[in-house]
Amino acid sequence: MNQAYEDLLAHQKQTMALGRIGGLMSWDQEVMMPRKGADSRAEQSGALSAVMHDRRTDPRIGDWLDAIPTEGLTPTAAANIRLIRRSYDRTCLIPKALAEETAKVTTKAQITWAEARATNDVAAFAPTLRHVIDLTRQYADCLKANGSRYDALLDDYEPGATEAGIAGIFDRLRVGLVDLKTRISDSEHSPPKATGDFTEDAQMALARDLAGAFTYDWQAGRLDLSVHPFSSGTRGDARITTRVDPQNPFDCLYSTIHETGHALYEQGVAPDLDWQPAGQSVSMGVHESQSRFCENQIGRSAPFAEFLWPKFQEAFGNAGLGSADDLYRATNRVAPGFIRTEADEVHYNLHIMLRFDLERALIGDDLQVDDLEAAWNERFETDFGVAVPDPARGMLQDVHWSCGLFGYFPTYSLGNVYAGCLDKAMRGDLPDRDQMVSSGDLAPVVTWLREKVHRTGSLLAPGEVIAEATGAEPSEAALLDYLDAKFGAIYGL
Amino acid sequence: MNQAYEDLLAHQKQTMALGRIGGLMSWDQEVMMPRKGADSRAEQSGALSAVMHDRRTDPRIGDWLDAIPTEGLTPTAAANIRLIRRSYDRTCLIPKALAEETAKVTTKAQITWAEARATNDVAAFAPTLRHVIDLTRQYADCLKANGSRYDALLDDYEPGATEAGIAGIFDRLRVGLVDLKTRISDSEHSPPKATGDFTEDAQMALARDLAGAFTYDWQAGRLDLSVHPFSSGTRGDARITTRVDPQNPFDCLYSTIHETGHALYEQGVAPDLDWQPAGQSVSMGVHESQSRFCENQIGRSAPFAEFLWPKFQEAFGNAGLGSADDLYRATNRVAPGFIRTEADEVHYNLHIMLRFDLERALIGDDLQVDDLEAAWNERFETDFGVAVPDPARGMLQDVHWSCGLFGYFPTYSLGNVYAGCLDKAMRGDLPDRDQMVSSGDLAPVVTWLREKVHRTGSLLAPGEVIAEATGAEPSEAALLDYLDAKFGAIYGL
Repeated sequence: MNQAYEDLLAHQKQTMALGRIGGLMSWDQEVMMPRKGADSRAEQSGALSAVMHDRRTDPRIGDWLDAIPTEGLTPTAAANIRLIRRSYDRTCLIPKALAEETAKVTTKAQITWAEARATNDVAAFAPTLRHVIDLTRQYADCLKANGSRYDALLDDYEPGATEAGIAGIFDRLRVGLVDLKTRISDSEHSPPKATGDFTEDAQMALARDLAGAFTYDWQAGRLDLSVHPFSSGTRGDARITTRVDPQNPFDCLYSTIHETGHALYEQGVAPDLDWQPAGQSVSMGVHESQSRFCENQIGRSAPFAEFLWPKFQEAFGNAGLGSADDLYRATNRVAPGFIRTEADEVHYNLHIMLRFDLERALIGDDLQVDDLEAAWNERFETDFGVAVPDPARGMLQDVHWSCGLFGYFPTYSLGNVYAGCLDKAMRGDLPDRDQMVSSGDLAPVVTWLREKVHRTGSLLAPGEVIAEATGAEPSEAALLDYLDAKFGAIYGL
Repeated sequence: MNQAYEDLLAHQKQTMALGRIGGLMSWDQEVMMPRKGADSRAEQSGALSAVMHDRRTDPRIGDWLDAIPTEGLTPTAAANIRLIRRSYDRTCLIPKALAEETAKVTTKAQITWAEARATNDVAAFAPTLRHVIDLTRQYADCLKANGSRYDALLDDYEPGATEAGIAGIFDRLRVGLVDLKTRISDSEHSPPKATGDFTEDAQMALARDLAGAFTYDWQAGRLDLSVHPFSSGTRGDARITTRVDPQNPFDCLYSTIHETGHALYEQGVAPDLDWQPAGQSVSMGVHESQSRFCENQIGRSAPFAEFLWPKFQEAFGNAGLGSADDLYRATNRVAPGFIRTEADEVHYNLHIMLRFDLERALIGDDLQVDDLEAAWNERFETDFGVAVPDPARGMLQDVHWSCGLFGYFPTYSLGNVYAGCLDKAMRGDLPDRDQMVSSGDLAPVVTWLREKVHRTGSLLAPGEVIAEATGAEPSEAALLDYLDAKFGAIYGL
């Protein structure tokens, strides 16, 4: 390649290295940082953000891009140039002061949110949330051109996705889910519930064991506790977190498997393209397809329950369950809970649709922060049939809005849709998958994901990655078929 | 103040914020980072280092400094300007490529060192150490002007100190220490030794308890494990680490107290001068005076043993000891051990003098890396009377050289000298100190340190801080008097 391309990639590598530092800072803030470190950390985030903004808008990037011949590019070079051009054009539209203020405000907002959540104090969080929304609107206004603010935000997480396209998928998905949950609630079947004493040590030991079974590389990551489970980092340093509920071990175990799915993607994404934009994970939706696939299509399957049952008994005793089938059904109880991350597969996407509609209204100025709690609670009761008891189980439950992550939530449901597509395709390629999973041999499953999804990096667009992997355009139909079959059997529908 | 000063301070604040990010990265690397994260972290360190170098050599700093009137400055402004000028002038002498390469190489070198130490493999570390020394020499050559390379390096850690000045103090200190250790080894007194089963949980719980007794603010820090105990961060986020030896609880407990002393300085340094150069700790020697004072003059005193004894019994049982006086003497056994950080107060400075002489020779090209192990072992046997059994207990025991920290070791002994001076002065100001300490009321001790040392920040030079606090120029005499009196009583000399 020519010198401009070499210079551009070298510059990009340093920018990516600084970006990884930002990832470490966020991880530390959630997992390790003492409370009084927040003010200083906010200054640090602001300073790094300013540096990143300067680098991303460095006019030399434009010069280098212009100096690279457009003909005869390798697919990798073409993807790198496409991704850098896109980032450069977008970032140049954002004033540096706005980027810096947003970094500072959202760093502090996460602390304010955590405290408000702990004390159920919506009023304590409201001014901060207003500030974050105001900054997010300003940001979207810089980018939206002729599209909607929300389209502009979506593009950061799912390049190419649109509000209208997602609304279409969600509308069709909603019909199927509401029908299924109604049939389930009318069913006389009631899966068993695990009860007993689930110590933190036993939960964490089993969580580590399961992450390892999914081939998580412990030399390239670590597992810690945080309020909200998340994954962070990439390649040689892809960390995960979980949380422990002494009443319910499945929260810890399935959060761990979920985050392991994310980390497997990072640990396996295009290993030969390190430090290149084409070698990065392609979108939040595809990322979520990896975590949800591991968590649900594998982790909450009947064969996995067979694998898990002896380990579960060793860790916790029988916990009121009598067999692997009991465990399978216990991990697939369908009930209208308040917490998104603990939701069953039938209700999960309804949680997302609630947030999708509310955050579109917030960003579009059709809903004010003062009215958010009432709007949340009303919509929740309509969709789930139960009243929200307190804000920690309502509008304060998720960290996202305090981080300024508007447009992020729908990628969770896109991930579920993609996971449904991948599951269908993998069953064709690995007809013996159930036997592999029940014996705890998950390597072939992960290898399939590596080859079909991880290795592609960002060489293709998100929808193209799924279409290439599955041989068909992504559609919600596979997910609905999977859910109907699975829960139809469990609930005798 | 004028606009140039405001702009300079605002620029400085962002630089300091980025510097704190570097501190977090180092902490994470030692305490949390998975092994395979090393390569990426090296790139991150290099990228941040390049950013820092650009900022520190930003020509606007020179312009701002020139535009600030030299008359009518407050003492704080004068100190800020003096410190920024010094940093700017020094940094401008270092080529950016050298700064960046040093950051990358030393980041990886710490991993190489840790592995070499674990496997006692000097040959595996030698090429890396040669590389680090070569970079350090280049660095010193940029700065040394008419002084020695070693003077140039010292100036980073103890501004104003010189090789010759330190050699003079060390020569006088050495005479007294050799005399004292000879008399002790001739003594028939043998202090008791703690024996038993010291679990990690019990050690860490007591370590936390003791850090709290020293008023360590847990909302502004945390305690973790690392290979080599250290403190990191400042103000609202001043973290400490320790390590656990199941055979010897004192390593964990006194490492914790030592690092707590460092952290107390950071948590208390000039609180009204945050984000200003004048509001930072003044030197490594003064820093070490705080840690060593807490560890030795307080932590290894007879009154502290009275406070510790019931806690110790609760944690570990009697461990072969019969009284607080036994505990006092057990924590003050004098013996020629191999490990610097575990050394008693009589031998400690002899460890430093060994490193001081060897590293001066390495930097001055009078000693080659290939000859270092032999030189270390020969000198050790001469000074301590025992042969080094393996490199992990010899030249591979300390992380410093892998980090490029040449010129740092002597500040440990300067810290001991300063701690001797502070102890003498504090006894005059707090005649009831022994009673306070034996009852566990350490707040007056810490308040004295806060007011006499911490609050001063960098408004004065290091030696001036100690002179102001104690009313006399620093001298090794106070330390030698303290050691003679203490160990004379314990060993019946």
